[in-house]
Amino acid sequence: VAKQLEQFKATIFTQMSMLAITHGAINLGQGFPNFDGPEFVKEAAIQAIRDGNNQYARGFGVPDLNIAIAERFKKDTGLIVDPDNEITVTSGCTEAIAATVLGLINPGEEVILFAPFYDSYGATLSMAGANIKSITLRPPDFAVPIDDLKSTISKNTRAILINTPHNPTGKMFTREELDSVASLCIENDVLVFTDEVYHKLAFDMEHISIATSPGMFERTVTMNSLGKSFSLTGWKVGWAIAPPHLMWGVRQAHTYIAFSISHPLQCGAAAALRAPDSYYVELKRDYIAKRAILVEGLKAVGFKVFPTNGTFFVLADHTPFGHENDVAFCEYLIKEIGVAAIPLSVFYLNPEEGKNLVRFTFCKDEETIKAAVERMKEKL
Amino acid sequence: VAKQLEQFKATIFTQMSMLAITHGAINLGQGFPNFDGPEFVKEAAIQAIRDGNNQYARGFGVPDLNIAIAERFKKDTGLIVDPDNEITVTSGCTEAIAATVLGLINPGEEVILFAPFYDSYGATLSMAGANIKSITLRPPDFAVPIDDLKSTISKNTRAILINTPHNPTGKMFTREELDSVASLCIENDVLVFTDEVYHKLAFDMEHISIATSPGMFERTVTMNSLGKSFSLTGWKVGWAIAPPHLMWGVRQAHTYIAFSISHPLQCGAAAALRAPDSYYVELKRDYIAKRAILVEGLKAVGFKVFPTNGTFFVLADHTPFGHENDVAFCEYLIKEIGVAAIPLSVFYLNPEEGKNLVRFTFCKDEETIKAAVERMKEKL
Ligand SMILES: CSCCC(=O)C(=O)O
Ligand SMILES: CSCCC(=O)C(=O)O
Repeated sequence: VAKQLEQFKATIFTQMSMLAITHGAINLGQGFPNFDGPEFVKEAAIQAIRDGNNQYARGFGVPDLNIAIAERFKKDTGLIVDPDNEITVTSGCTEAIAATVLGLINPGEEVILFAPFYDSYGATLSMAGANIKSITLRPPDFAVPIDDLKSTISKNTRAILINTPHNPTGKMFTREELDSVASLCIENDVLVFTDEVYHKLAFDMEHISIATSPGMFERTVTMNSLGKSFSLTGWKVGWAIAPPHLMWGVRQAHTYIAFSISHPLQCGAAAALRAPDSYYVELKRDYIAKRAILVEGLKAVGFKVFPTNGTFFVLADHTPFGHENDVAFCEYLIKEIGVAAIPLSVFYLNPEEGKNLVRFTFCKDEETIKAAVERMKEKL
Repeated sequence: VAKQLEQFKATIFTQMSMLAITHGAINLGQGFPNFDGPEFVKEAAIQAIRDGNNQYARGFGVPDLNIAIAERFKKDTGLIVDPDNEITVTSGCTEAIAATVLGLINPGEEVILFAPFYDSYGATLSMAGANIKSITLRPPDFAVPIDDLKSTISKNTRAILINTPHNPTGKMFTREELDSVASLCIENDVLVFTDEVYHKLAFDMEHISIATSPGMFERTVTMNSLGKSFSLTGWKVGWAIAPPHLMWGVRQAHTYIAFSISHPLQCGAAAALRAPDSYYVELKRDYIAKRAILVEGLKAVGFKVFPTNGTFFVLADHTPFGHENDVAFCEYLIKEIGVAAIPLSVFYLNPEEGKNLVRFTFCKDEETIKAAVERMKEKL
């Protein structure tokens, strides 16, 4: 095994999902809906298969999908991008991150993450030989500690990787926070890589892209995907948006790690991104209802629950239940109570920082969430 | 752009396909069929979408696909592998190569390639910081120069990357050649990564996997894909097969560069791999007929044509037509004659070695191949 990867295990999501299956637990761990994506998107992909769109797609994306991504990005951010030179379609946001990091970061360059952070960020940065620094977002509000950032940025800092709405905390970066990060980036000539896959699951405030902060488009790679907004996590259609001087590196890495992605599902994705606004209104309404059920339920069970403004996750403090740490608690919860959650310690460079926290998802139908809450109410 | 990728351009396949479109040329360059994959495979994928197989697949492959791959591998090679621990499903063979290289090669380790070699090999090895050595397979028969290999292998050699049936030459490695390579690998404790995506396009001799050479399974990563065997290059379903101690590294890299690949198309792939033998018999018969049309056609045009035993490519010497080199010839061929081919120089570390050669594909319907030949006969 290459040294850079030796330290990594099977992802915590896979570990917990497998354990959940073994023990017949209700899975509120890994973030995948237990309901299906919209019919019109599925039918568009089916039509594409039938119509013979089954050979290599253009490497950086089927032309019509790149156009649909640009249109969507304009509606969402007001920014106008060139579909052919500023967008690359990838195998989900995971591959967008890998292509961005492998395409733009040299071995030894420093990249700053906000902990808790999604596990692929750390692993991908290791593959690229980057030097990882992390700054912790602290409960209860997980605000950006701008002074920590100021003192961590150095001449060797090449990029900051942000994620808003933020997995696993549900925190959304405010305009003020984004502008402060942006100023520091411009002052120090630092890039931003931003993972915004939960942008349509923004409940209490508006999602803001850091690419819209003054002077930032030029130094930002904005990443997104179909999976969360359209409940089609298994289609693995994602993309990166960046100005041509950054897109070049991303595209080169993408070319050699994947070349192109599934042609017919890209056709489905193009149809999805042209969904009427009402689609997103309903999606949000449904998720707000699910969030309420989970949050109220967890409180009733006795957890201390942190507010979640976006994503389909909610963090809870498990210490009232007297377990040694988050991993021990999650194992107990799966095996004895029959509910799976995700322990937070794996999201930090220093696992100690997450040991009181666990993450539950509400991307399940209401009955499933209610059933999980009932199990915990009865037995925890 | 990361330094490792600076030297690479858009792939030659994309460059030539785009030029072909601009000039209305018949595209015998990039290797994608202009006919569709089998109905039963397409219907299986459609059914999977309808049935709601649209969320994250298991990271290393949908269980049923891993089983189908193991069954197919047993039929093809006699080797029995564990679907859960010795197979990882990837985004085409390109991602299998990337995951293998990034997962198993440390910066500074040496990897030996046989030139001419497919462009992604060099780029992926550069991303991993590997030290690339190349040994040239020479016309007319492109036999493995085992003495060159013997003198090139060193204590720093970590792996040899082979490809049989071989793109772009159409050469197939013989049992004797594979056994000689195998002995050298065992003697020197070297791994083999083998790309066998054209295994079902083996026309005049049997395809042999080096994993079947004595003692080799333990040190081999065998890579394959759906695209070429089922005329579905745009589905991007591939896989790597290796013993658990190697599979671990491959799987880790795969996890963080893609996590999982398209769930419904994996269901289609499982159906494909269970095709009756008659499917492969017809595929081969069709391709033998196409090969004959192209080879006879190129000879009639005045090319010196090299024998091709496998793949859907044929190499030709363009020097009778008096152009400076392969790139100049290919540009002339597209712009003035209306036929696209691929120049060979990009497949070598030293481009000079390929300057007399061009590659044509016969993965097109017979009318298209005939039309291309006619254009060349008339105008070249
Ligand atoms: C790719 S598996 C993890 C899914 C997810 O995004 C999450 O649960 O955080
Ligand atoms: C991935 S584009 C190239 C297709 C192919 O394998 C070839 O033409 O050699």
